[in-house]
Amino acid sequence: MQGSEVRIPQGALEGLAARAFSALGVPDVEAEQAAAILVLAEMMGISTHGIARVATYGERLKSGGIDARARIESTRVAPALVQLEGGNGLGPAVGARALATAMDSALETGVGVTLCRGSNHFGAVAPYCWQACEAGFAVIAMSNTTPMIAPTGGRTPALGNNPIGFGFPGPEGRHFIFDMAISVAARSHIRRAAEAGEPIPDGWATDSEGRPTRDAAAAMRGMLHGIGGHKGYGLALAVDMLAGVLSGAAFLTDVADLAREPEASQNLGQAFILIDVSRLLDAAELAARMDGARDMLTSVPPVDPDSPVRLPGDRALARMRRARTEGIAVPDRILDDLRALACGKEETPKPLD
Amino acid sequence: MQGSEVRIPQGALEGLAARAFSALGVPDVEAEQAAAILVLAEMMGISTHGIARVATYGERLKSGGIDARARIESTRVAPALVQLEGGNGLGPAVGARALATAMDSALETGVGVTLCRGSNHFGAVAPYCWQACEAGFAVIAMSNTTPMIAPTGGRTPALGNNPIGFGFPGPEGRHFIFDMAISVAARSHIRRAAEAGEPIPDGWATDSEGRPTRDAAAAMRGMLHGIGGHKGYGLALAVDMLAGVLSGAAFLTDVADLAREPEASQNLGQAFILIDVSRLLDAAELAARMDGARDMLTSVPPVDPDSPVRLPGDRALARMRRARTEGIAVPDRILDDLRALACGKEETPKPLD
Repeated sequence: MQGSEVRIPQGALEGLAARAFSALGVPDVEAEQAAAILVLAEMMGISTHGIARVATYGERLKSGGIDARARIESTRVAPALVQLEGGNGLGPAVGARALATAMDSALETGVGVTLCRGSNHFGAVAPYCWQACEAGFAVIAMSNTTPMIAPTGGRTPALGNNPIGFGFPGPEGRHFIFDMAISVAARSHIRRAAEAGEPIPDGWATDSEGRPTRDAAAAMRGMLHGIGGHKGYGLALAVDMLAGVLSGAAFLTDVADLAREPEASQNLGQAFILIDVSRLLDAAELAARMDGARDMLTSVPPVDPDSPVRLPGDRALARMRRARTEGIAVPDRILDDLRALACGKEETPKPLD
Repeated sequence: MQGSEVRIPQGALEGLAARAFSALGVPDVEAEQAAAILVLAEMMGISTHGIARVATYGERLKSGGIDARARIESTRVAPALVQLEGGNGLGPAVGARALATAMDSALETGVGVTLCRGSNHFGAVAPYCWQACEAGFAVIAMSNTTPMIAPTGGRTPALGNNPIGFGFPGPEGRHFIFDMAISVAARSHIRRAAEAGEPIPDGWATDSEGRPTRDAAAAMRGMLHGIGGHKGYGLALAVDMLAGVLSGAAFLTDVADLAREPEASQNLGQAFILIDVSRLLDAAELAARMDGARDMLTSVPPVDPDSPVRLPGDRALARMRRARTEGIAVPDRILDDLRALACGKEETPKPLD
């Protein structure tokens, strides 16, 4: 479905998304934190994890799959280490609180690690990395997710597409921000191919029996391939060990599949590792080294003379700068849904355009 | 070259390797620490990073490329954060010291991060992960290395094959230990193919112009492909940001290529992140969760009924157990070299067999 779109200033979109979460029963502070995360993703061009999620999280808030009034409780088990109980609360609110607690620890001890249990889908990882970098921290952040990858040599899914992200603060917002899921290709690409009736490339996915497939519809019922064969298996498991096993959350096959059990509480786990870089390098030195790394990479001769080498994340950061000055492009339909949610009204069916 | 081999007990091999390093001018404690790391790699079956490295590190110790009498100095810049200056010392001695300082921090604050500069090739990552797990810590460890991977869209190498490893302590040594380099295939596999005059699979490497190649000899002069395309680029860069840029070490294209400049000091960077898991879970709970994760994975139905699903690292741990009871298989020739080094004698040329 195509439609027109309008450009909304960041603050206005954050306000609207926050009001929507509030109308869904989420306390104001958490509603604002969650809105900020989703709007940042939207600004970065990660619209699969942007403000369209207000409505999908909203469905689970309404059904009780996510607890709007959850008590998010943090326990500082050691000076640099926090355990956070999300209480099955809104994922980005849990994530925002986890990030804040890890910053507090890192300010005191140079490093802060917060491990969350009782969480839900917390959006994209990159927005948290951006917030950490803006506050002067290097960051590694990750989440476990619903199983959709088989372990090497196995026929059924046991590992999530566990996203992991990294952020390192550069001068004037020239951060290095990189996040990735473990799979060769995102499930959303396969969904789009299935909807369009198009095949997918070799090496993306298997059918439900674990056989390689190029049939997108079969792949949607099947499993994703992780990058690098057994390396993707190891990486996905490492993320789940930290974010799931050590955090006290569900892990591996105990993570509920929301497609099958939409009302289940997922008990997802997340982990944030923050380092206060000001303890390591003064601002001028850090800026010189970050820009030095950037220069080394962008001066590598390109394969295609018209496509200079970029850093991972640079495209997202450029989109973010543009969104800050020109506003954020939001499809009319999503905006209508947001407004209806913000007014506490059920979305009304829209005419197809 | 084939030859016979003998089985040596762990302690005897450690003693021999330590005496070799001592004879090369390395202080006793550091010689022992470095020997322990290389012998652990050998026990795990990582013979490319095992005791054969005593001789290769020895060459650089003799030429002054590595400083045998380096002062390794640690500065605790914050309660959980240590900067370590390796002084161009023996890599595994720097790594062992870094691990020890990160353990000290983690015991106090729950988390310990140590970043090293002025280091050298520190062997495989898995032995450090093993040592951390045995002491009750979860660990992430990594190093930058000589550039051999191009950034996405680039024609010349700028990123190392930067290894990263993870360890999570399980009961009775049933740890989860996983380490990987960023490339699809190890350079040692390409070297073996080149020596055998055999082609390499698609997707492993490019020639020196950045064109895909299956010619192993051309690939040895060319570049490696990282896993997952731009994902490997991002991962390799994330490792270098932490281990290189933030540590104060050389990074990216400033890391010397020892194949071209064997006498250069590399100023490699390494990073260790340790978490004291006893602050998170009691021993019984941790054991139950670690074994629970193991059970979930090993009970996934296998593609090949004769090849049950394993955890990454399980093969290495099984080899280690065997080596502990039966001794470590060491080729005669490497043992002769070690003995000659341990006696302070130059290796004498061996007859080809």
